[in-house]
Amino acid sequence: MENKLKNIKAFVFDVDGVLTDGRVLVGLDGEFYRSFDEKDLFALRMATMNSYTLAVITGGGSQCIPEGLCKCGIKREDFYMKSRNKVLDFNNFCEKYGLSPCEVMYFGDDTPDAEVLRISGIGVCPSDAAFDARQNADIISDYPGGRGFVRDMIEKTLRLQNKWIFATDQYKSKF
Amino acid sequence: MENKLKNIKAFVFDVDGVLTDGRVLVGLDGEFYRSFDEKDLFALRMATMNSYTLAVITGGGSQCIPEGLCKCGIKREDFYMKSRNKVLDFNNFCEKYGLSPCEVMYFGDDTPDAEVLRISGIGVCPSDAAFDARQNADIISDYPGGRGFVRDMIEKTLRLQNKWIFATDQYKSKF
Amino acid sequence: MENKLKNIKAFVFDVDGVLTDGRVLVGLDGEFYRSFDEKDLFALRMATMNSYTLAVITGGGSQCIPEGLCKCGIKREDFYMKSRNKVLDFNNFCEKYGLSPCEVMYFGDDTPDAEVLRISGIGVCPSDAAFDARQNADIISDYPGGRGFVRDMIEKTLRLQNKWIFATDQYKSKF
Amino acid sequence: MENKLKNIKAFVFDVDGVLTDGRVLVGLDGEFYRSFDEKDLFALRMATMNSYTLAVITGGGSQCIPEGLCKCGIKREDFYMKSRNKVLDFNNFCEKYGLSPCEVMYFGDDTPDAEVLRISGIGVCPSDAAFDARQNADIISDYPGGRGFVRDMIEKTLRLQNKWIFATDQYKSKF
Repeated sequence: MENKLKNIKAFVFDVDGVLTDGRVLVGLDGEFYRSFDEKDLFALRMATMNSYTLAVITGGGSQCIPEGLCKCGIKREDFYMKSRNKVLDFNNFCEKYGLSPCEVMYFGDDTPDAEVLRISGIGVCPSDAAFDARQNADIISDYPGGRGFVRDMIEKTLRLQNKWIFATDQYKSKF
Repeated sequence: MENKLKNIKAFVFDVDGVLTDGRVLVGLDGEFYRSFDEKDLFALRMATMNSYTLAVITGGGSQCIPEGLCKCGIKREDFYMKSRNKVLDFNNFCEKYGLSPCEVMYFGDDTPDAEVLRISGIGVCPSDAAFDARQNADIISDYPGGRGFVRDMIEKTLRLQNKWIFATDQYKSKF
Repeated sequence: MENKLKNIKAFVFDVDGVLTDGRVLVGLDGEFYRSFDEKDLFALRMATMNSYTLAVITGGGSQCIPEGLCKCGIKREDFYMKSRNKVLDFNNFCEKYGLSPCEVMYFGDDTPDAEVLRISGIGVCPSDAAFDARQNADIISDYPGGRGFVRDMIEKTLRLQNKWIFATDQYKSKF
Repeated sequence: MENKLKNIKAFVFDVDGVLTDGRVLVGLDGEFYRSFDEKDLFALRMATMNSYTLAVITGGGSQCIPEGLCKCGIKREDFYMKSRNKVLDFNNFCEKYGLSPCEVMYFGDDTPDAEVLRISGIGVCPSDAAFDARQNADIISDYPGGRGFVRDMIEKTLRLQNKWIFATDQYKSKF
């Protein structure tokens, strides 16, 4: 697994239950509002600052998702929203950046993520993932979704590649 | 119990403490906003996609309830809002769809649910249900309300009936 | 303690950490929004339906407090908002309704509640109360604030007085 | 450590994961909304009421931060928002008030706080802090961020200095 982790060049995320704890707050407008975790968001910034490629593939459609995450350096064009076929979107992402699936870590927690967890280089799921996700993941984190899972996996990968480096000046200019 | 689970054709839900963790966020407008859980909502979609009948009977009156749940395939006409007599609404639901109570699983967590938990085919309550609900439920889930309870019971029922099948194409066209 | 519980005719509540888990969501308008728990709110309704007197004494000033709680039968005039001297407000409440302090259960969780916890008939605090509150409470509940504490104490008191009776018709006409 | 605690005259706080549990609720406007804890906020008021100097240094930029915290007596000019170099801001704060770093307790939970945790008189982090923060803190609290951490450290410090005194009249006039 350590060798596989050393190959990772990109991180692709489902949103609900991965970058959030799965809760959606519903407004009278029918909009679904989400909460993210700052320690997870910091890990996203560390990854973009160190030139990893990031993308989001989500069944959700709310504008709060790109609003919350694009500040971390994920490009607006790399949000695959309202995805109904995650394998298709995952393959499009890989092709676009010339990445082999084995260079991509995929973060998913539920049944629609099962297939992508299986075909990506390293499929990772949180401690509270659904059965179908746990069955197909290469790594089950000790942390639940939205509460340390994403941070855990990114920090581990970057440390292993000697890329967990926080440079105040670089951070200052970028975010 | 397994035989009873095989008879289930419909799922009827209380909202607070069942499809939510019981918390209501109060706005200055006096509106009560709720949070749902995406893994629960996915289970609702799997149930409607596989032709189960779903309804909601709630004492609450906020528009956020149908806004949050109708995207999962529950028809707007099958929301019994501001219910003050849940037995009456439950019986009306059964009659409307020609269902026997023994074909319906009812999800409740508190005193006003006690009687419906008793008369429905299978009455289920979350691990953190109130005493009156636990006393009248056939099954007490290992999961708390809004954090896996609904998912747990629907996934169990559908798997037992060989209906926990996620078909990307069908999902794509429906949601 | 059982004898003391049998004397209780009124319930008086602090809000933050008692009827909520202590969290306040801050809007750009500087407003503090709170979340209540439906099982707690149901207990408030059971108490007002069975003719107990209820009041709220809080240091907070947000309109979301009466908006959230007045639906449970607490009269708008019995909200002591922006309270800076809870003993004074508590005594005014007792005098207004001709109650002896020993007939009143007070719910508090923090330092400003300590004195009222001491002088009320039964001072109760949640499992996660601050040191000063725990030192002055007669009962420390097994449940934390906003997650079962209020429900626990009201249900216990009403059951002991044979008043935990849910009458659909009465409930229907009142709420 | 007790001697070091007796020297403390000022408290400086990171926000996310320290005064909050790290969650940020994202609005459609791209705004990040935060939740604070009332028992923590009360500790801030006790500190300002007893003439300690307080400041906030945060990478966040949302107006909800000063709105939520200035009611506790932190001056608007002592909010260092959108900080990209926390050491610089910390030194500016010390200089402004003529404080030696050893008179200041700094509260941080993540990688950007590591250096300030190291150079401040007492660096403290919550039980759920990131690795880089735990490595550089003098004290790791038993409580997680936004759920008792700030209260724990302030109450301990003030009690040790015999300053944990709640005077209703003073409180009344000030807040």
